[in-house]
Amino acid sequence: MINIKIVCVGNLKEEFWRKACEEYKKRLSKFCNLKIVELDEQNKFDNAQRIVEEEGREILNHVGRSAFLLDIKGKELSSEEIAEKIKNETLVSSEITFVIGGSYGVSNDVRDKIKNKLSFGKITLPHNLARVVLLEQIYRAFMINSGSKYHK
Amino acid sequence: MINIKIVCVGNLKEEFWRKACEEYKKRLSKFCNLKIVELDEQNKFDNAQRIVEEEGREILNHVGRSAFLLDIKGKELSSEEIAEKIKNETLVSSEITFVIGGSYGVSNDVRDKIKNKLSFGKITLPHNLARVVLLEQIYRAFMINSGSKYHK
Repeated sequence: MINIKIVCVGNLKEEFWRKACEEYKKRLSKFCNLKIVELDEQNKFDNAQRIVEEEGREILNHVGRSAFLLDIKGKELSSEEIAEKIKNETLVSSEITFVIGGSYGVSNDVRDKIKNKLSFGKITLPHNLARVVLLEQIYRAFMINSGSKYHK
Repeated sequence: MINIKIVCVGNLKEEFWRKACEEYKKRLSKFCNLKIVELDEQNKFDNAQRIVEEEGREILNHVGRSAFLLDIKGKELSSEEIAEKIKNETLVSSEITFVIGGSYGVSNDVRDKIKNKLSFGKITLPHNLARVVLLEQIYRAFMINSGSKYHK
């Protein structure tokens, strides 16, 4: 069973976001081993540049060979294309990491080191909602790859 | 204060989606009068074509002059561009309607009659999550238009 790791910055304050993520985690449990790594927001700094650099160092500690960075300027894929990407990665890797930056985005270092940049479109999403959308898309990808009908 | 109406098909079964929507409704209450019209899913029919046609008739009963249809093949706008659209519409209209189709999409009739088609990117979203994303984007639009800092 493939390992999927989501590396994100900051926790989910509102219970409804946590419940939404739990629901998808539950659904995903039959397809993959999912691990969510929540890094601390570096809010002890008041400088955005410094924040993303500190967060970036932590992010890169958790990123393996097969990683995707969520990035508004990344490559936009359809859900079917995301499913295809995941299918292909599972052939060559035992773990896929998805990275969601914090409120200030990510450092240039993270951008440089993670070559695969995935965009969910031109809209800006808050990090909590982006996490839910990512989980839903990963779930959708497994449903597509398993040939299941899924359009809820 | 502008009236914003969201016309959607089917209700939100999971409590966490309802709570997420309630949160954005609360936040939006200082910017607009928000009304969410939840139409019945036409699940008495077993034919997708018939379902979207029946749902389409109901949708069009609730759509005014200034309407946007959420459509994966629609025009992709950034959050700033959505904010600009909403600002411009408020100058000429007292109500803006956003339509989210049901599980089977919308009828050709709805597609023909609602000229403004808005896409949140190439990914397929389930209708419940699409509703949350839409509410967040409307909230973000008002925050952008009011000059507020908002990047949570």
